Amino acid sequence: MEAWPVPPLPTDIVPRKIRYAPDDSLARPFVPLASAFRDGSDSVRAYLERCLETIEAAEPSVRAFVVRQDAKVLRDAADAATTRWRDGKPLSAVDGMPIVVKDMIETIDLPTQMNNPIFTGWHARRDAASVMALRGAGALVIGKTVTTEFAVGNSGPARNPYDSNRTPGGSSSGTAAAVGGGMAAFGLGTQTHASTIRPASYCGAYALKASFGALHVGGVTPLTTTLDHLGLFGASLEDLWAGTMVIARRIGGTPPHPGIQGPIGLPDAHKPKALIRLDMQGWSETSEATRAAFEALVDKVAKAGVKIIDRRGDSQVEALEQTLADVYEFALDLLAWEARWPFGTYRDQGPRMVGPRILDLLARAEAMDGARYAEAVRRREALQTQVHALSDRAEGFLTLSASGPAIEDHAFTGSRSYPLPWTLVAGPTFAVPVMAVEDLPLAAQVAGYRERDAELAAIARWVRDQAMAQA
Amino acid sequence: MEAWPVPPLPTDIVPRKIRYAPDDSLARPFVPLASAFRDGSDSVRAYLERCLETIEAAEPSVRAFVVRQDAKVLRDAADAATTRWRDGKPLSAVDGMPIVVKDMIETIDLPTQMNNPIFTGWHARRDAASVMALRGAGALVIGKTVTTEFAVGNSGPARNPYDSNRTPGGSSSGTAAAVGGGMAAFGLGTQTHASTIRPASYCGAYALKASFGALHVGGVTPLTTTLDHLGLFGASLEDLWAGTMVIARRIGGTPPHPGIQGPIGLPDAHKPKALIRLDMQGWSETSEATRAAFEALVDKVAKAGVKIIDRRGDSQVEALEQTLADVYEFALDLLAWEARWPFGTYRDQGPRMVGPRILDLLARAEAMDGARYAEAVRRREALQTQVHALSDRAEGFLTLSASGPAIEDHAFTGSRSYPLPWTLVAGPTFAVPVMAVEDLPLAAQVAGYRERDAELAAIARWVRDQAMAQA
Repeated sequence: MEAWPVPPLPTDIVPRKIRYAPDDSLARPFVPLASAFRDGSDSVRAYLERCLETIEAAEPSVRAFVVRQDAKVLRDAADAATTRWRDGKPLSAVDGMPIVVKDMIETIDLPTQMNNPIFTGWHARRDAASVMALRGAGALVIGKTVTTEFAVGNSGPARNPYDSNRTPGGSSSGTAAAVGGGMAAFGLGTQTHASTIRPASYCGAYALKASFGALHVGGVTPLTTTLDHLGLFGASLEDLWAGTMVIARRIGGTPPHPGIQGPIGLPDAHKPKALIRLDMQGWSETSEATRAAFEALVDKVAKAGVKIIDRRGDSQVEALEQTLADVYEFALDLLAWEARWPFGTYRDQGPRMVGPRILDLLARAEAMDGARYAEAVRRREALQTQVHALSDRAEGFLTLSASGPAIEDHAFTGSRSYPLPWTLVAGPTFAVPVMAVEDLPLAAQVAGYRERDAELAAIARWVRDQAMAQA
Repeated sequence: MEAWPVPPLPTDIVPRKIRYAPDDSLARPFVPLASAFRDGSDSVRAYLERCLETIEAAEPSVRAFVVRQDAKVLRDAADAATTRWRDGKPLSAVDGMPIVVKDMIETIDLPTQMNNPIFTGWHARRDAASVMALRGAGALVIGKTVTTEFAVGNSGPARNPYDSNRTPGGSSSGTAAAVGGGMAAFGLGTQTHASTIRPASYCGAYALKASFGALHVGGVTPLTTTLDHLGLFGASLEDLWAGTMVIARRIGGTPPHPGIQGPIGLPDAHKPKALIRLDMQGWSETSEATRAAFEALVDKVAKAGVKIIDRRGDSQVEALEQTLADVYEFALDLLAWEARWPFGTYRDQGPRMVGPRILDLLARAEAMDGARYAEAVRRREALQTQVHALSDRAEGFLTLSASGPAIEDHAFTGSRSYPLPWTLVAGPTFAVPVMAVEDLPLAAQVAGYRERDAELAAIARWVRDQAMAQA
């Protein structure tokens, strides 16, 4: 098998199209069912069966999974969790929760294959730190989900759960599709440029890219050491936060980062005094319908009494917009230079063993030198300083998560314009899928300051509540 | 197979004892032969054959290797390198150099088994960043070398090349034994506490633990993120530096660290104005004969005109000695807490799948909390500040690498007292095996300030030259 040229989309995908509305989505929350799990009016086992039914029905169209855990194993584990809930002794808020794991993240029991032929059938023989934490809390890994090749190259077969002609976004394609499509309550992905926030928006999943380092990346196959983040996906904000905090409490951040500090339960909604609205490069790519949806959301937020600060007449925000418009090339420099390893060692295994995108990045790195890399590092640090300087003026930032709904494409998984800047900023950012455009999901991006993840969760909750109440 | 209880030493080890002297050692330098490789009076192929003969003769006693590369593959590669040297076009100073790789470090062609049954037969399907760099420069990986279990647990079968009743030290046991014993010119190991400097001293190899982050650790199976260092071993200081700089130039540090800055060739010897002599906790464990050997070396250095500063009458050095005497418990806290992953996921694979030392560390972590870990991080940072404050008084530090020659043991691989503090300091440190005690190797430790690796290499060279000239 070869990774070159770009593999085409499978021809046997069953067409499917489903209307999305923020208050009528396919996503299947788990955490809000806790009291029903306790009182027996619902059960973890029944929840699992609903997921498995959805998978059975939708997977011929969605193709979210690379490999699935044996259903008997899952049912036995769900039965045990069902009993714990009814005995009032669940291991945690996620005990028995079906979760999916991007195929870049190591699991003991399932192979980790990274959508590249070198790793066909490869087993890591360990769980990633995040998977270890979630399993320890009782979560059930129901399968490994499609990634683009090494989280940056060729697309896999996964399709958007709302329209099989459209991409789910990348690189966490399968996780976004599975969580957005009601196949699992929570999922793990990664974000090095845009790989969590973009697919979450396309698939109608809630998502978080936490502060850099605040969630342990051990066992996530590395691309870079300074941009790689764990990405979290939830069927609801409550599911998203519960899975996130299980990781934070049980294993924490990548040492010496202590991990996200905050309550185990989703923080109460907090109405910010002010938010900064950012357009970024993405605005020029954004359709009228998408702009209108975002403007309507901004209006709602403003009418609720939040001061919206934007570039108009504000030289500090205008300066930040100018900086942000100019990050895309140096962000590629950071990725290309840092990913010389491991991409070099993959390329060395054969002339057609990695796809064209990986080869492009290696070629870019070969045209660079250490000074150019150092300049990229310096520019990222300057951006971080510039963002932090706004922290006394507004509690967060409001922007789009994507330049529109999922595109009708396969090889291209969408623009990185909106999510990428906050990867560089290293602050937390939530995808909050409270808009619909062309009956497809679209998420706002609620972004914040580094190490203030829990504060931002409270703001994201408030934004969601506002949007849903008035939807 | 199980990792528990501690596996005994193999019963079929062929006894062997060889007298060591600093100027008459088993080590087999490669880099100093460059002109002979060029003019044809020697060849890389002939060098390889000498290594293979040594392995054939000594391996029944030394047991340095877990797995060896096929000799035909090595001979073909050595022949190609031989031709390149004779054509005046070697790929680098290490073209055709036989090297060994600790079995904690990933290699495409050979399994990475970590002396634990979980990883029996496991292949990483990639080269570690350091291995990729060395191979790209023409080095030949002749085999994977014995490590203690996951670089901290049960001893493997490797024995000291000078006395098969003695340990080679751990955890980089096989790399130290192979390089010290003349089986390879250069080798990769790791150091998280003491795993490079200690075995280098026991086996008569030169070694470097570079500044933290200054050599890319990608593909080194992680124990911790803040203590893990690559460890380098060389048959001579010239070999050590050549291999080190190949890694530094070709892949650099763990991003964003640019990597060791310095010349490709070993820097000229530099006589420091002053060195600080440190005793540390190790001194109380050190025998009279070892103390005498070290005092003699210090005397030589002093008589050559270097000011020796020590704790006597110097309150700043005395304060540092007191800090250093107290690092051992918090260093274990750092290791235990950070290694919850991956050790937790190994333990989860079966009740007897990890050895007692790993279980002890997991138990220690379970008795800790985040506040205790944060205190350990704080103390390490304070130590680093305290050491740095001496940089205007002396260009480096002189101490022992081990509390004596290799001990007659198997399960215990020796005291970590001397090497551990500089792991915490995060500065570079060289093992310079210029002493003999009981006809066994003993290394001085030449330690320096963070990011000044090349300056320290020049001092280590001067110390070596002084010691050897007057030996």
